[in-house]
Amino acid sequence: MLRRYLPVLTWLPHYNRRLGGADLLAGLIVTVMVIPQSLAYAVLAGLPAVVGLYASLLPSLAYTLLGTSRTLAVGPVAIIALMTGAALSGVAAPGTPEYVEAALILSLLSGLILVAMGLLRMGFVANFLSHPVIGGFLSAAGILIAASQAGYLLGIELAARDLLPRVVELVRELPGLHLPTLVIGAGTLIFLLWLRQYGRSSLRRLGLPRSLADLLTRAGPVLAVAVTTLATWHWGLEQRGVAVIGDIPQGLPPLTLPGFDAATWQALLVPALLISIVGFVESVSMGQMLAARRRERISPNQELLALGGTNLAAAFTAGMPVSGGLTRTVINYDAGAQTPLAGMFAMLGIGAVTLFLTPALHHLPIATLAATITVSIITLVDVSMIRQTWRYSRSDFSAMAATILLTLVEGVEAGILGGVGLSIALFLYRTSRPHSALVGRIAGTEHFRNVERHDTETASHLALLRIDESLYFANARYLEDTVYDLVATRPELEHVVLICSAVNLIDASALESLDAINARLKDSRVTLHLAEVKGPVMDQLKRSDFLDDMTGRVFLSSYAAWRELSRPSE
Amino acid sequence: MLRRYLPVLTWLPHYNRRLGGADLLAGLIVTVMVIPQSLAYAVLAGLPAVVGLYASLLPSLAYTLLGTSRTLAVGPVAIIALMTGAALSGVAAPGTPEYVEAALILSLLSGLILVAMGLLRMGFVANFLSHPVIGGFLSAAGILIAASQAGYLLGIELAARDLLPRVVELVRELPGLHLPTLVIGAGTLIFLLWLRQYGRSSLRRLGLPRSLADLLTRAGPVLAVAVTTLATWHWGLEQRGVAVIGDIPQGLPPLTLPGFDAATWQALLVPALLISIVGFVESVSMGQMLAARRRERISPNQELLALGGTNLAAAFTAGMPVSGGLTRTVINYDAGAQTPLAGMFAMLGIGAVTLFLTPALHHLPIATLAATITVSIITLVDVSMIRQTWRYSRSDFSAMAATILLTLVEGVEAGILGGVGLSIALFLYRTSRPHSALVGRIAGTEHFRNVERHDTETASHLALLRIDESLYFANARYLEDTVYDLVATRPELEHVVLICSAVNLIDASALESLDAINARLKDSRVTLHLAEVKGPVMDQLKRSDFLDDMTGRVFLSSYAAWRELSRPSE
Repeated sequence: MLRRYLPVLTWLPHYNRRLGGADLLAGLIVTVMVIPQSLAYAVLAGLPAVVGLYASLLPSLAYTLLGTSRTLAVGPVAIIALMTGAALSGVAAPGTPEYVEAALILSLLSGLILVAMGLLRMGFVANFLSHPVIGGFLSAAGILIAASQAGYLLGIELAARDLLPRVVELVRELPGLHLPTLVIGAGTLIFLLWLRQYGRSSLRRLGLPRSLADLLTRAGPVLAVAVTTLATWHWGLEQRGVAVIGDIPQGLPPLTLPGFDAATWQALLVPALLISIVGFVESVSMGQMLAARRRERISPNQELLALGGTNLAAAFTAGMPVSGGLTRTVINYDAGAQTPLAGMFAMLGIGAVTLFLTPALHHLPIATLAATITVSIITLVDVSMIRQTWRYSRSDFSAMAATILLTLVEGVEAGILGGVGLSIALFLYRTSRPHSALVGRIAGTEHFRNVERHDTETASHLALLRIDESLYFANARYLEDTVYDLVATRPELEHVVLICSAVNLIDASALESLDAINARLKDSRVTLHLAEVKGPVMDQLKRSDFLDDMTGRVFLSSYAAWRELSRPSE
Repeated sequence: MLRRYLPVLTWLPHYNRRLGGADLLAGLIVTVMVIPQSLAYAVLAGLPAVVGLYASLLPSLAYTLLGTSRTLAVGPVAIIALMTGAALSGVAAPGTPEYVEAALILSLLSGLILVAMGLLRMGFVANFLSHPVIGGFLSAAGILIAASQAGYLLGIELAARDLLPRVVELVRELPGLHLPTLVIGAGTLIFLLWLRQYGRSSLRRLGLPRSLADLLTRAGPVLAVAVTTLATWHWGLEQRGVAVIGDIPQGLPPLTLPGFDAATWQALLVPALLISIVGFVESVSMGQMLAARRRERISPNQELLALGGTNLAAAFTAGMPVSGGLTRTVINYDAGAQTPLAGMFAMLGIGAVTLFLTPALHHLPIATLAATITVSIITLVDVSMIRQTWRYSRSDFSAMAATILLTLVEGVEAGILGGVGLSIALFLYRTSRPHSALVGRIAGTEHFRNVERHDTETASHLALLRIDESLYFANARYLEDTVYDLVATRPELEHVVLICSAVNLIDASALESLDAINARLKDSRVTLHLAEVKGPVMDQLKRSDFLDDMTGRVFLSSYAAWRELSRPSE
């Protein structure tokens, strides 16, 4: 029982020096690598940079104790930071203490929601974020984040928050760009893009082993931070107008108690729910992918509890909403992390930086961080996935397109809610006009296929109608129409057999419709039969009076019905 | 084309004297019968009684021209009046000119919505009101209406509008009841209940033919109105405190132009939508039932246009939202109406009453109307349907129970929206954990059934998994889990065949999952096959790369897969 809720108990007893060595190295590498992005994502959310460091400390420990993935690394991530910024700016102005305070409430709410979902074993809720909706949302979020960073890269202060006005303002203000900032920002951007494209192969051509080449390529942001910070300090660029991180408070995060203000809680409830679900979906699918590579399993419901715990930890230590991060997890995995203890070592490393090294970060230019963010989110915009979805299904594509457009124009919450709502509506619409087919016997076999697609035997007094959908309220009347049309167009009809091989459910509304069909056919002297009714559906029909009132029989197979009914009665 | 939108053109050219005689008689009978209920439903909606008469005039003509049902009679109906009252009291105080004005706006909006739905051929939207939700809503509405009339029956003025406070207030104010009102109200109530229960048989025992006995039984409310009005006038009961209808303006309805006040329009939009859909569902299912009896067809989409036209007519002639009414339609049908012209004759009759006879209605006691309403809505509370639904399906029952509770506690809009939302959520939840079954061959046949329910042949290296649901975003991951569990528990497995006979749809999310399953099984040296894939699903799969990447084959039937794979490979 305790092991189920504290997975740490399953692996810690078997811990040994070999694992410890690997984890320690991975922890060290992660420490160095994630500091730039931790700072950057806090800035992206409109929070003081140090909040990103705080949110990488105790939350990591919580995940070490509660998580079921061996290699997932938690902390501030781009998408969640974007959503956090959007949510917080609805209740407070960036830069105010209320804004920072609201971030704690958002973390707390998100933590409570995740824990509640975990205890209620509601991991399935995540399934309602379909692939096209998530894919569309991430692509749109990538564009939004890029737009939010463009001003920092160019040294232009932008007032507009929405995408279109922001772009318009950016273009209008372009002549006022700040050249030193642009040099730093664009320089970093080009360097990082070059590194991503050619870095690995160039380093390998220099004779470095693959793993080291990978690591150095990933260290690009760290190098950029170091170089631009030194340059800014050396040439005193802060005085020349280059925006820098500035003074970061030294020391461990303070303990915080998120305040209770009913209006703020209410305003942040829906955003917290969406942040929880998006964070969970991203985190758990990444965890599953990595677990599969190592033939391990993760437990989605325990992951909910673990992510809940990390967010509660963030709420009480001056943090912000956190989740499993793609970049930091991949770094952790590639650096050879073996157990969640690697996360704890990284925590100790980041803690040490927070304690002693924050003054060194004073001169870190915001433009460098903006470039780092921009490069890391470019991969989110997935054009090939959009194209594939278009090719595969117009319905899925329209859900995706709606998600993208709504996210870009109306914001992240409208995007997700609209996408999910449209997905559900489209699914319901599709099932509300169910495919059905008149089938005939493929000569000499016991198989029955669509008379329009195959060469089949039929009988004019017998209609075998295969229903390709569960029967429920949304399509019950449609079934009535289909059968009535059939009877109206074929006056010689004596038997109608509904083949229910694809009917997984007959709800109360559909039962009423079957009753009505039975009564109407009886008036027209046509007998109604069923065939291939599944076990669970049959069990349920037996709980009603329908089978007693039905004029015909229930056949085990279409073939049995054919054998019995295909010869015309006298 | 013109005939499609003006069904009157299809039947009027064939009109003759015989039809005319029948329609005229039906029109006369309807005139007399529907006056009490027209007045009563206007009062139920909190509107002046005369509005009920106005709403029976031009709207009837509109339906005569546009409707496809031969016998449906439109006008104010109980449910719509209840919903109208609930909607209007949200934007104005009953008794004020703003309240009457808002009723016009509500009719206009409802008319516009219905016409738009008709032009867009969106009749299918009505299907989302499942039988349990409608049934539950009507039952709860019956209780609400009864509670709203109790005060009038007892001569107690009630201030509370919600159900519970109203009942509490009623009990507390009970000692202050007005005896003469109670005598009229309770007397009418008992008389009408007696008539309904025993009237027909008693009259037939007196030797009257069945049709006349039926008619006289239905004339009960008219008789009650006549007697109590005369009594009130004769004994001057108005001066003794019996509430009466009072002065009704004489003459035809004024032409009205609903005002445009953005806030009112916005507040009434959702109520208008619900009124439209509920009115349409009630009206069209009644029309279908009667059409079936006479072997006629009605067109749901044209009915939307017709109901839209009637509501627009109501909006411009000082009316209120209208719909096809059960009572008035049954009276019309039983009185022998042959074509919609009967409705026009009834309109002329009611018009004559409005012109000349309204002074005679001055002394009509409100309590009589309340008793009329109460008796006619008692049938809405359908306990046997509630019991049957409980027996048939807990899921349907819970949607019904939620609708009833929400309607009673939170009001009609919350009831319908909550019921529909819950129905959809339950359906999605059910399909999100799809039933699947390992199947085996029934020895000697080509049939494959659930190994747990039937005695079957199986092979340890071959798993035939029948999936009993369409594969879409909500259940894609569940399928992955099912297959992975299967592979994990059966190490000797070489082939997994997914039998897709019940799979009507594979959306983009499910395609990703199939890709993932294929890749994972490949790693475990298990081959993935499909069988019995339906035509439309196969067409769609061909638009992706999945079939190229799949390790196994697509079999036409489960039997073909069995024949090919059931012998172990070497």
